[in-house]
Amino acid sequence: MADIAHTVHVALGDRAYDILIGDSLLDDAGAILAERFPGRRYGIITDDNVARAQLPRLLKSLDAAGLGHTEIVLPAGEATKSWAYLGQAVEGILAARLERGDLVIALGGGVIGDLAGFAAAIARRGMDFVQMPTSLLAQVDSSVGGKTGINSPHGKNLIGAFHQPRLVLADLSTLDTLDARQFASGYAEVVKYGLIDDEDFFFWLEEHQAEIFAGGPARGEAIARCCAHKARVVIEDEKELGVRALLNLGHTFGHALEKDTGYSDRLLHGEGVAIGMVLAHGFSARLGLAPSQDSGRIAQHLKKSGLPTTLADIPGKLGSTETLMAAIAQDKKVSRGALTFILTRGIGQAFIEKNVDGAAVAEFLNEMRALPLSP
Amino acid sequence: MADIAHTVHVALGDRAYDILIGDSLLDDAGAILAERFPGRRYGIITDDNVARAQLPRLLKSLDAAGLGHTEIVLPAGEATKSWAYLGQAVEGILAARLERGDLVIALGGGVIGDLAGFAAAIARRGMDFVQMPTSLLAQVDSSVGGKTGINSPHGKNLIGAFHQPRLVLADLSTLDTLDARQFASGYAEVVKYGLIDDEDFFFWLEEHQAEIFAGGPARGEAIARCCAHKARVVIEDEKELGVRALLNLGHTFGHALEKDTGYSDRLLHGEGVAIGMVLAHGFSARLGLAPSQDSGRIAQHLKKSGLPTTLADIPGKLGSTETLMAAIAQDKKVSRGALTFILTRGIGQAFIEKNVDGAAVAEFLNEMRALPLSP
Ligand SMILES: NC(=O)c1ccc[n+]([C@@H]2O[C@H](COP(=O)([O-])OP(=O)(O)OC[C@H]3O[C@@H](n4cnc5c(N)ncnc54)[C@H](O)[C@@H]3O)[C@@H](O)[C@H]2O)c1
Ligand SMILES: NC(=O)c1ccc[n+]([C@@H]2O[C@H](COP(=O)([O-])OP(=O)(O)OC[C@H]3O[C@@H](n4cnc5c(N)ncnc54)[C@H](O)[C@@H]3O)[C@@H](O)[C@H]2O)c1
Ligand SMILES: [Zn+2]
Ligand SMILES: [Zn+2]
Repeated sequence: MADIAHTVHVALGDRAYDILIGDSLLDDAGAILAERFPGRRYGIITDDNVARAQLPRLLKSLDAAGLGHTEIVLPAGEATKSWAYLGQAVEGILAARLERGDLVIALGGGVIGDLAGFAAAIARRGMDFVQMPTSLLAQVDSSVGGKTGINSPHGKNLIGAFHQPRLVLADLSTLDTLDARQFASGYAEVVKYGLIDDEDFFFWLEEHQAEIFAGGPARGEAIARCCAHKARVVIEDEKELGVRALLNLGHTFGHALEKDTGYSDRLLHGEGVAIGMVLAHGFSARLGLAPSQDSGRIAQHLKKSGLPTTLADIPGKLGSTETLMAAIAQDKKVSRGALTFILTRGIGQAFIEKNVDGAAVAEFLNEMRALPLSP
Repeated sequence: MADIAHTVHVALGDRAYDILIGDSLLDDAGAILAERFPGRRYGIITDDNVARAQLPRLLKSLDAAGLGHTEIVLPAGEATKSWAYLGQAVEGILAARLERGDLVIALGGGVIGDLAGFAAAIARRGMDFVQMPTSLLAQVDSSVGGKTGINSPHGKNLIGAFHQPRLVLADLSTLDTLDARQFASGYAEVVKYGLIDDEDFFFWLEEHQAEIFAGGPARGEAIARCCAHKARVVIEDEKELGVRALLNLGHTFGHALEKDTGYSDRLLHGEGVAIGMVLAHGFSARLGLAPSQDSGRIAQHLKKSGLPTTLADIPGKLGSTETLMAAIAQDKKVSRGALTFILTRGIGQAFIEKNVDGAAVAEFLNEMRALPLSP
């Protein structure tokens, strides 16, 4: 029936679910849901951009399948991951009288996925939910694995729950309305999977980059490989007590930069991750752990994808190294005061290091600030 | 070391924990925590009444054990179980830089237990927490079992999480500062355990009521028996998919009455439950399921405990039967429209009935409204 190009199963016991990837899954959503979850009603949470670009397709498909639904449309943007909009989402679910057996649908990028998933986790002490990721970042990363949440004035993603979706529907055609800069930002997370522990995938990406950006079959394949990778990690370490932290490659630096630029248009999440991954490889090389040419090769690939790769690529004035270090220390990957970083022995060989010397990081950052724009 | 009169183990696998019951556990808390959770810091959440009456004992004991702590004192009362104070509690935890391995302490009645437990569930996507219940209701009911949450304008306890504590410390001496009406209200829940499936316990309560109210050893014993009962139910059905619903005996009526009286001083939770239990027995008798003399015997015992037992006992004017029925239908124990009630075949023989006829309930309520004050 539905045109499903790839299926990835996330084998989490009684919380197991499928990730379906295909070209027109939003149009098939009604039929897919009616078959998998008979007799339920749906609370769709989305943002205004996605409501404009993609919601009509989903509504049409739910209506065709005769499924009851209600829509909650929130403003687009990271600022929506807040107490105020969490309250609005949860109260909207309750106002629609959705019951514990009904489902929440997160239709949007990572912001909506994180917020709606968290709303589902706490409305009626836990409702089922379906991820329908519409940004590349959400399709390869945030929609899989059950981390949900909002931001605090004290830091990003500090409030939330582990709550797995019951199904992920990644419709590739939704990416056609995503803007190019957002697509590139999501692509940084694609590259990340190669860098962590899959050298072959990184080389394959180097080969297929043009096709992935153009929207050929390699796009679906890349997304499916990322989902399979993430699924493997999540199965092994659902609550991020161990290996799941590897997914934070590039993120400690990245988060500090995002914070410093005020989570604004100056630097998108994936852009911060792109710079952060280059820095993580550079810092690992500096420590004598990794070959020094890797960070250049990675930077070249990211640069070709339209991503920034050096601190100087960030528009506007960056905060002092002290400010950045304070942000790094405040990152929630801090464990009892010691700095935890994802370091690497080379492409595809990342590892968790719990005892990183803050002074060495600061010194390295100081030097990196002096580098020019990426060539 | 510590003077522990009773220990109840809640065998929930990797979420197992102990309930310790004793006369001076707040004074021993520092030593107990230091031994069980070495190297942690503590975020204490409490309300202003309990802060005045009991917090100094806990602080003294934590300080003596050299344990770091921060205090978050919220206003007393059901209205504190709201988004606003949840936000204050969570942000307070984050502001104090408590890490994922640190612990939240809920020091107070059921309001603080529910709110602080929920705050712990979502701060940093889940922190450990310890219940230190100080009301009778909290010691016998709300501190055990991991249901946490806040209220919504759409209804009570509609937002929350299942999050088990790591330890429950029930200090019997804290009940000395609890006011008598609150004590009686909590006692309704004690009686409930007998009515559900433990006839012998109900008869024992009839015998030992005076000693329980006076504070003799029967008080600790009663609390321990309640905790053991609740622990058994929670182990069998942690997420309330089945038998745990029996704990709602008297609560469907009770919640409707609480709602109708605006969750105010007019009717405390246990008072609503007391009337609700009498109604549940009366309604079951009306349906020919239970002996008709039971509800009288129960009413007599509750009345002797200072609890209301009929609708007429509620001060002020009660809403119409239609209003009460609407509240009943909105209660979250509604499953796809059918009314679910806890009915009974007699004292100690409660059961879940999912197909209760709304019209019969309305008719019964109408008659009950006409009854005079309890004799
Ligand atoms: N839960 C996790 O495991 C996890 C992992 C990584 C990132 N995240 C979170 O994800 C968020 C970032 O996600 P994001 O990059 O998708 O941001 P986003 O959700 O803000 O989406 C980016 C922008 O694209 C728009 N958009 C999305 N899909 C569109 C479409 N198909 N057509 C037109 N416009 C579209 C959105 O409205 C928004 O303006 C961050 O909050 C981050 O913390 C979570
Ligand atoms: N989570 C569960 O499983 C569960 C079960 C039953 C009830 N509840 C919830 O519990 C709440 C009711 O609990 P409660 O009856 O304890 O109410 P409460 O927490 O409001 O306490 C009642 C009053 O007594 C005061 N108090 C408490 N301990 C005291 C002490 N030792 N000395 C002096 N004053 C003290 C409080 O400040 C408050 O004013 C409701 O919100 C209900 O929904 C939860
Ligand atoms: Zn990321
Ligand atoms: Zn109760």
